[in-house]
Parts: sequence; C-alpha cells; structure tokens
Amino acid sequence: MSDLVLIERNAYDSNGVVKLTLNRPEAFNALSEAMLDALGRALQEIAASDARVVVLAGAGRAFCAGHDLKEMRAEPALDYYRDLFARCSRLMLAIQRMPQPVIARVHGVATAAGCQLVAMCDLAVASSDARFAVSGVNLGLFCATPSVALSRNVSRKAAFEMLVTGEFIDAETARERGLVNRVASPDTLDDAVRTLAVTIAAKPREAVAAGKGLFYRQLEGGIEAAYALASETMACNMMDDATLEGTQAFIEKRPPRWN
Amino acid sequence: MSDLVLIERNAYDSNGVVKLTLNRPEAFNALSEAMLDALGRALQEIAASDARVVVLAGAGRAFCAGHDLKEMRAEPALDYYRDLFARCSRLMLAIQRMPQPVIARVHGVATAAGCQLVAMCDLAVASSDARFAVSGVNLGLFCATPSVALSRNVSRKAAFEMLVTGEFIDAETARERGLVNRVASPDTLDDAVRTLAVTIAAKPREAVAAGKGLFYRQLEGGIEAAYALASETMACNMMDDATLEGTQAFIEKRPPRWN
Amino acid sequence: MSDLVLIERNAYDSNGVVKLTLNRPEAFNALSEAMLDALGRALQEIAASDARVVVLAGAGRAFCAGHDLKEMRAEPALDYYRDLFARCSRLMLAIQRMPQPVIARVHGVATAAGCQLVAMCDLAVASSDARFAVSGVNLGLFCATPSVALSRNVSRKAAFEMLVTGEFIDAETARERGLVNRVASPDTLDDAVRTLAVTIAAKPREAVAAGKGLFYRQLEGGIEAAYALASETMACNMMDDATLEGTQAFIEKRPPRWN
Repeated sequence: MSDLVLIERNAYDSNGVVKLTLNRPEAFNALSEAMLDALGRALQEIAASDARVVVLAGAGRAFCAGHDLKEMRAEPALDYYRDLFARCSRLMLAIQRMPQPVIARVHGVATAAGCQLVAMCDLAVASSDARFAVSGVNLGLFCATPSVALSRNVSRKAAFEMLVTGEFIDAETARERGLVNRVASPDTLDDAVRTLAVTIAAKPREAVAAGKGLFYRQLEGGIEAAYALASETMACNMMDDATLEGTQAFIEKRPPRWN
Repeated sequence: MSDLVLIERNAYDSNGVVKLTLNRPEAFNALSEAMLDALGRALQEIAASDARVVVLAGAGRAFCAGHDLKEMRAEPALDYYRDLFARCSRLMLAIQRMPQPVIARVHGVATAAGCQLVAMCDLAVASSDARFAVSGVNLGLFCATPSVALSRNVSRKAAFEMLVTGEFIDAETARERGLVNRVASPDTLDDAVRTLAVTIAAKPREAVAAGKGLFYRQLEGGIEAAYALASETMACNMMDDATLEGTQAFIEKRPPRWN
Repeated sequence: MSDLVLIERNAYDSNGVVKLTLNRPEAFNALSEAMLDALGRALQEIAASDARVVVLAGAGRAFCAGHDLKEMRAEPALDYYRDLFARCSRLMLAIQRMPQPVIARVHGVATAAGCQLVAMCDLAVASSDARFAVSGVNLGLFCATPSVALSRNVSRKAAFEMLVTGEFIDAETARERGLVNRVASPDTLDDAVRTLAVTIAAKPREAVAAGKGLFYRQLEGGIEAAYALASETMACNMMDDATLEGTQAFIEKRPPRWN
C-alpha cells in the first residue's frame, strides 16, 4: 500500500474507527491516478475488515482539491478521459457501497472532485474555515461527475448555482444546505469527528451495514418498491442475535450485553 | 371499532375535520398489531367518507413511540416480521393514498415508526417540546421502513445521521430540515393545527383529492411523465363544477358560491 | 415577434446576456395563449443563438400571475384544457432544455404558473418584496402542473402546504426553502441579477451548455446511470478547445486566452 493514503486503525483511541488520510499535502491531496488507486485499495480492504466506521481526512492545509490537472492535461485523449472518470466514479460509488459509514473530516478547501468526495461520504463534519466549490467551470470543465453527488445532497437551484458560477460556499452555508452535518471550530474539529464516529461505532455492526445498504437502494426507486426492500431488510435485521439481545434488554430496562 | 383509536368528527368545531387520536397513552401509543389494525380501519373508513381533512394525534404524554417491542420480541420468526412490516408499510402508504390531507399533531416524542408516521403525513404541526428520533439502531434494529419516509422528507445526510446515531432532534430542527411544517408552543399547538385544518377544509374537496393523488404520483417518475400526469389532472379539475364556479367568481370579483 | 415579450440583447451592458420581459403589465403578465406562444418563440430563438445567459423578468408591478383565467374560463372544454396545459408544460420544459442558464428576476407576485416559471428557471433572484404562491386551490383548481416544478425545488411538506393552503410565502422563506437563490432589496435587485448573469456569461459556452443538459438528465435516473452519463459528458468536455486552454492556463498560472 502506497503512503499516498495513510491508514490509522483504532483512530481517535476508538476501537473499530479507521482514519484514512489523503497524503499529498504539497498538491492539496489532488486525486492523481495513483491516489485514486491507493484510496480505492484502502476502501476495499476496509470494506472487507471488521472496521465499524471510516473517517476520511486530508493532510496539510486542504481536504482535497479534486483531480490532478497537470497529470490530466498531459496527454489529452477522449478514451483516456472516459477511463479516468469511470475509475473515479467507481471509487465514489465504492464509498456508498461499503458496509461502514464514512465520515468526511473537512478542513481548508474541498473543490471539484474533492467536494464530490464530501458529498459522497455518508456524513461530513467541517471545520468552520472549510470552503466548498465545484469550480471546474472556471477552467471550462463543468463539474459533471461532482454534480451527481452534489445534486443528491443539496437543492437543485443551490447545486446549479455552484456548478455554473464556480463560487465557494463556506462551512455554515454548506451545513444549512445539507452538504455537511456538523460544523466545528478548527480546534474542536477532531473532537466533533470523534464524537460522531464513536457514537456510530457503538451500534451493532450488522444493523448499521444492512441499514446503510438499504438506505441508498431504497432511494433509487419508487416508494412502494422502497417499502418492500425496507420491510425485508428490517425483518432479517430483527433475527440478528445482537438485535434479539438489544430488544430484550430494552424490555428488561438493562443495557444490552453485546461483545 | 376499537377504542385504541378515538375518532372525533367535526373536530376543532370545524365541519369536515376528523381527528384521530392514538389511544394507548400508558404505552406511548405504541403501534401494536391491534393498533395497526384499528388505525388502518379508521383511515379506510375516513377515506370513503365526506371528511375533508384528518388530524392524527396521540393521547397522553407522547405522539407515538413506534412499534410495540414487547409484542414484537415475544416469538421471533422471520415470516412473522415480514408480515408485520408489510402490514405497517401498507398502513403508511394508506395515509398517502387517501384523498384527504392528513396533518400530524405532534407533541412529546415521535420515535421510530412514530417518527415515520410524522414523515408520511402530508403535513405536520409540532409542539415546541416535541422530539424526533429513529432510534432503533440503539437496540440493533436499523429503522429501515422509517428511513423510506424520512429520506423523502429531509436531506440525505441529515436522514443518515439520525438513522445511524439514533439521536433526537428538536422541533425547530425538524422544521428547518423539512420534517414538520410549523412549530407552536404547547398551549397554542391546537390553535395552530385548527388554523391549518380549517384553511384546507374550506377548499373544494375534488381539487384537493385529485391534487393530493397527483402530487405523490408525479414525484415517482421523470419530469416529462410528471408533466403529462399533471396536465391531465389539471384539465379534468378545470371541468369540475366547483372549479368553473370558483374561476368565474374570481373573474367577477366575488366570493364563490360553493355548498 | 409580438411585443408581448420584450427581448433585450446585451442586457445589463453585458455581452451575451439576453433579457426577456413579459410585457402585459395591466394583466400582471398573465400567460395567455398568445403570451405562451410569444415566450415559446423567444426561447426557441435564443436557444439557437449565441446568447450565453437569459434573464426572465416581468413588466410593471408583478413578475407573473399565472394563466389568463378569463381566457381560460371562456369556453370550458376538456380537450381545450388538455391542449392548453400540454402547451404550457412544453414551454416550461423548454426552459430546462435550452442550452443557456435562465435566471428568473422576480419582483411583486409570482403565483400559480408564475411561481412555476420561477421554479423551472435554473436560477432565481428575488426582490425582498416578492411573494410566491400556488394559489389555484383557492378557486378550486389545484396547481397540478406547478406542483411538478415546485416539488423539484422545495421539500415535500413545504410544497404540499403551499399547494393545499394557497398561501403566500415571502422572498426570504422562498430562499431558505430552495425556490430562489438570492434575495436583494428592490433597488439592488438589478445589480444582483447582473452580477450573477455576468459571472455565468464569462464561462465557456460549451461547458455550460453541456453541463446544464447533463445536470437535469442525471437527476432523472439512478446514481449509477447518472455517473455513466456524467463521465461521458466530462470526458467530451475535456476535449473542447476552451477546456484544453483553460486547464493549461491554470497549470501555467495565467488567465485563459478565450475569445
């Protein structure tokens, strides 16, 4: 595994929390092909592990500034770009498809595919100094793939405005619009991330994994199909040992005995 | 009809307003199988009646605390749970499919399937002391069926956060995020509900019924199909006697003569 | 071209900005059949031109009060209404399908199909004195076609409330809910519109046009199909001359040389 992505297990002194840090600070953690590969491999490995929660962060002064434009611009070719955006899209979908909730820990700038990363994560905690933009249009490159994620987080007109103006929004605006869950001052950002991660890590893994999968699948279709999927998920979830113990403990007004 | 659900016609001294009260206060109005049946029958009866608006409330200190866990936990069996969640889902969909708008009157807690009830109602007015959670994950039971309704009311990240943390949000937060329409102090809650119910009850029944049906159907597909459905609905609506009178009255600058 | 719709090229002293003004101030710019035709022709002409941004405004005291009820009520016939709403829906979809971003400049009232126009525009800037309603239900005519647009801008419960109560919301509420992007005082409204229009007009036309088309198409399906569409759009966009120059200029830390 390349050191382009640092992997810290039991991060925040918390069992089951894995912290991934994009580690190309000199390039604002730009998503070069090597970075896409390294991050993809790291997510795949964690997906198959007993980790419970993932925190995605950036080293240095920024969360992530999007694609590596220098690399991208070097040898223009349609098929190369098709392949590149397809690979990047697979990475983004892998975040949504892995069983563990992924929390973006955002500081500094999150632009273009960096803003897309925030949008694709299940949850996001931002430093009050964080700023978000889908700024490709400033170079003549409309942030098409980021728009898929952004438009599933914020309202249409707000997403469209960011996409055609390329302008930044601040952390509080991002929170109001639904792009991030929580905002913390720079010096309490890690406390806020830890609190959220630890809360989730304390829940039974099976319930969270089945629930996360169901959550995104049921959004893809009509409400009747959604209820059919959700009913089946919930019925199966009820039969889990952890759930039978959890509900029994609730009835007996005692804490559940989970390992 | 069981007294598990109290039915009050011409509620709030208002013609056409029916108030349904979940009446198991000692169990925080938990949705036992008997309660699901009683509520389903009440909704079916109202759907076929000349009622114009429905208010859904809870007796005692809470709106509704979700499923009856003691009953649910008694004899675990996958097919039993499949049947239970399918029945509950049919009830939830019946709220959306009945011709009358349904207003949730929320006080105290609305948790799990109780929070789902709020989300499935067309409108919701909350007491400022109301609190909302999809807290099944705390027992190892991800609120899968409630997530269908919740994710169609609030933004993705906000819904996901509630589902994996199990944490409460207060009434004002619920309003900001789209889960409830209006918040009132506990002593003005009924005034706020009455105002909304009476406003809607004054509109022609046919227009409201056709409009409610169209509203949810057009959300299920693409925008072109939505416009086709809406155009047909609106053309038919224009030919209603009440609409011909209403538009003529508007042109003549007089109140409509509706019965 | 009728003077029902005024067309001003290089509006706001800005190259590429076209301002369309609905010009029936004595009827609050009601969308008569002639107005629908005139607006449709104007949009078609602009779509095929080298314009970069469209501003849609209303003459006189209001933005637009919706359909022309007097005309609509004159000779009631189902097939006539079917045709009318189909024509209006085609107009609304034409706004979304034209390559240029369309900014609604809203002052005074925007009601029924006038509120729908705001919702269908890609962006909207409102005067702080603007008010919005889908008030047909007050006459017995549920705003079915406006609901298609409104429900794709604001949350379900907020849209439903407006549709069944017919009540107005003010500009700030419209902004909070996602119906408009920006609110300005009446005397700075044109500055705010100009700022937004000029910002967008400065971006490469191809990127904006391809991006706008992709934005709405990708919203119509599931996320995997959305990513496939977006990847193809972005790969093709990268090969545009303007984009190759824009990205190269970024790398060389100089302004792009665009014509």
